[in-house]
Amino acid sequence: MTSSPADHPSGTPPVAALSVNALSAPLVAQLIDEAAQLRVATSRTDAGTVIVDAGIEAPGSIDAGLLIARICMGGLGHVTTHMNTEAEPFWPVTIDVRTSSPVLACLASQYAGWSLSATKEQTGGKKFFSLGSGPARALAGKEELFAGLGYRDRHDRGALVLEVDRPPPPVIIDKVVRDCGLAPDRLTLIVTPTHAVAGTVQVVARVVEVALHKTHVLGVDLHEIVEASGAAPLPPPAPDGIQAMGRTNDAILYGGRVHLTVRQDAVARRLAMELPSSNARDYGRPFAEIFASFNYDFYQIDAALFAPAEVWISSLESGATYHGGSVNAALLQAQWGARPAP
Amino acid sequence: MTSSPADHPSGTPPVAALSVNALSAPLVAQLIDEAAQLRVATSRTDAGTVIVDAGIEAPGSIDAGLLIARICMGGLGHVTTHMNTEAEPFWPVTIDVRTSSPVLACLASQYAGWSLSATKEQTGGKKFFSLGSGPARALAGKEELFAGLGYRDRHDRGALVLEVDRPPPPVIIDKVVRDCGLAPDRLTLIVTPTHAVAGTVQVVARVVEVALHKTHVLGVDLHEIVEASGAAPLPPPAPDGIQAMGRTNDAILYGGRVHLTVRQDAVARRLAMELPSSNARDYGRPFAEIFASFNYDFYQIDAALFAPAEVWISSLESGATYHGGSVNAALLQAQWGARPAP
Amino acid sequence: MTSSPADHPSGTPPVAALSVNALSAPLVAQLIDEAAQLRVATSRTDAGTVIVDAGIEAPGSIDAGLLIARICMGGLGHVTTHMNTEAEPFWPVTIDVRTSSPVLACLASQYAGWSLSATKEQTGGKKFFSLGSGPARALAGKEELFAGLGYRDRHDRGALVLEVDRPPPPVIIDKVVRDCGLAPDRLTLIVTPTHAVAGTVQVVARVVEVALHKTHVLGVDLHEIVEASGAAPLPPPAPDGIQAMGRTNDAILYGGRVHLTVRQDAVARRLAMELPSSNARDYGRPFAEIFASFNYDFYQIDAALFAPAEVWISSLESGATYHGGSVNAALLQAQWGARPAP
Repeated sequence: MTSSPADHPSGTPPVAALSVNALSAPLVAQLIDEAAQLRVATSRTDAGTVIVDAGIEAPGSIDAGLLIARICMGGLGHVTTHMNTEAEPFWPVTIDVRTSSPVLACLASQYAGWSLSATKEQTGGKKFFSLGSGPARALAGKEELFAGLGYRDRHDRGALVLEVDRPPPPVIIDKVVRDCGLAPDRLTLIVTPTHAVAGTVQVVARVVEVALHKTHVLGVDLHEIVEASGAAPLPPPAPDGIQAMGRTNDAILYGGRVHLTVRQDAVARRLAMELPSSNARDYGRPFAEIFASFNYDFYQIDAALFAPAEVWISSLESGATYHGGSVNAALLQAQWGARPAP
Repeated sequence: MTSSPADHPSGTPPVAALSVNALSAPLVAQLIDEAAQLRVATSRTDAGTVIVDAGIEAPGSIDAGLLIARICMGGLGHVTTHMNTEAEPFWPVTIDVRTSSPVLACLASQYAGWSLSATKEQTGGKKFFSLGSGPARALAGKEELFAGLGYRDRHDRGALVLEVDRPPPPVIIDKVVRDCGLAPDRLTLIVTPTHAVAGTVQVVARVVEVALHKTHVLGVDLHEIVEASGAAPLPPPAPDGIQAMGRTNDAILYGGRVHLTVRQDAVARRLAMELPSSNARDYGRPFAEIFASFNYDFYQIDAALFAPAEVWISSLESGATYHGGSVNAALLQAQWGARPAP
Repeated sequence: MTSSPADHPSGTPPVAALSVNALSAPLVAQLIDEAAQLRVATSRTDAGTVIVDAGIEAPGSIDAGLLIARICMGGLGHVTTHMNTEAEPFWPVTIDVRTSSPVLACLASQYAGWSLSATKEQTGGKKFFSLGSGPARALAGKEELFAGLGYRDRHDRGALVLEVDRPPPPVIIDKVVRDCGLAPDRLTLIVTPTHAVAGTVQVVARVVEVALHKTHVLGVDLHEIVEASGAAPLPPPAPDGIQAMGRTNDAILYGGRVHLTVRQDAVARRLAMELPSSNARDYGRPFAEIFASFNYDFYQIDAALFAPAEVWISSLESGATYHGGSVNAALLQAQWGARPAP
């Protein structure tokens, strides 16, 4: 464990270190212990690495998705759902996310930033690609992002989430074990396809993380960010992989709301203006349509699109709050809104 | 413990068995340990059966009602309340219910389906009748419903909830112990009259169960149902028994909202159309009035009335969501809505 | 521990005693154990008294504020936040508070009623003044209020919350230890300035307590009050102390909603009429402006102002609910509402 300057202002006393893998370990244990009621399946590789199937062969569940989201946030996030109770809600269920350690929870842990790929030769079958997310990323620290965070974790256990529809091949598991510096039997790999219930939940639960990452992309000093909360409508999964990816992204880009507390007033003003997804060139079309229009090449999409629809940014310096963007309920309604019973 | 196919699709791997009595046992222990702050009274019969009074002599509380609702759902449900925060809510407090195991939580456990009656001769006093609900039902398995569920529980402890205003007579306690195959001192009986605070809470917390039961009555295969959540306004109890029963039913029939996730698109379409209470012949009048009009004979009431007011049904097959029914705020407002301060 | 008649009606059986210090002790332990992630700093005096800095040198956090609020309620309250999800919320985040033991939680524990002052001579520096809140008040029982409550706590540990911007001087710590009858190393003092994040949270979490205290001031028998819940918008702290105090008060006085369940119908009617802040002479101006207009003399402000904006009062006797007051969103918007991004 090393110290974590990321969530602390300069000038305040250093606090004891936080380990996102230690903090999430009890949640990983719960995922395994309650596998039956969460409808996930657990298995072990020969070397002892635990594989949790949360949507490939095992069906998974919303409960599993919420727990995986909390694991993904390194044990530093609150993730719940509630029914909407206003007079005529456009959608019945909302997912709520809050963290008092947004930089560690979202960027050092939850962000899907660890590129894991294997060629056909390496897998002995199909090529494999996944972006790893969750606390084990902070053990490996293979991403440039960690330099900016000034955070690395040290712990004897780790968990990584892979949003794929088949188990990772041995070559990938070996790489993760090695890069994390873990004994093989101390690693848990959680696999959640987007087109499964748990996968949908854990992706939409990234509504705050998306705001944090765009803030980082905009070049804002991460020490600026103090508190974060967010909400987004929770759609059912689409059966098709691209459509499933489309609607989880739409839930955030067109339905996500985020409240950040930052230090400087100037940062709050700027983020209220620049953070919402409406700043992106591709804004206004469903994500699946945008994705298709770029021949499914993620990197062609304007990165500014990956952001919540509506933001409130409060400044500790001034006490003021700035508001930008708005929920695009019409687009969501057209995409996966409820249809009247025939 | 036997295996539980009810919440699992055919084709997915069998999962380890879930025991609704084992899962709810820590909550039963909490109800007893925290009796003082929950304002319930606990006692033991000579044979050691625990009786929890949650509204007869002891006043009970909302906290007790929420805990009893979670016990009633076999430890597989989340039950909370929140204040409504929209601009001008018609009612201030909502109860939220969610479960990732709706068939087990609601039908194998929460449904009040175990008919328990004793004659004057048997009681040595007044005749007794109650519909038992909660996890011990799944130990006894006396109801036809259990054949359809393909579920029976095995556990050495059990809890049963009785919505009555006096403690059950010894003959009923003996019958429950015997039918559940429990040692007498391993059974907990929780008694919650509808006209008490805890009783009101645990009845309104049946908003999802009512949807599940009507789905079953409609002949839908229970393997279809994957996830469920719901909400309803939480009224205060009415002092009169019939009125208390009336307003808890009204809260669900005219104020209840439920979101179900099912498999097939055809099932989702059908449920959106047929599930809402508005399909019932008697829809549109307060429950207490309907009940009185049938001379308080429950079985004369159109069974289709026992359903939430508004539903959203999502299909995993198609990814579509269908919407039916609507909250009848005018009826609720007329019945027990807040009156302006004089 | 002595018995607690306060939350129980006459005529119902006496319940076992509740100790607000025993019930909150695990939360105090959590505050200390999780200091790093809560961003609070803990230290010990020479005599072993624990000082938790939640906003002076250490920055604190919303998580810390929520935990401190639960400690302040003697372990008998639920305190959470959620994002507002209605179409166009005037403010993004709401704090929710609920307790089934409102008199004990709010008046015997949470109310800031213990006047702690020290002269320059006593401190050897600046004079000190703070109103202590939280469970240790019920160990000391120095306030007249406790006679009305008929409650005193006995426990070997205690916690007190001080809403000040510097640590209490030794003379104050000695007094608290002595008056509470505690060993010095069994007392925890939690210091939360209003202009810090945790301080803001724990003050706005007083929305129900304010309703309870005004009910007491109105001369209503506290045995009348059975259940309570409330909500208020959660603003960011203002950097200036007076403005910070202003906006936390505004959140309650102009944005707070409370639902109480009482016994008698006459009490419910009366409270719906008299409880809302709109009954106060000074109602309608921001709190900071009112405070300034009385030269920062708290005791010049009409006490009737310290109340929620909007109330619903349900009666167990009649089953009726009465509604009074309304949220003054325009005033809150003008004070600290979100401004459009430039």
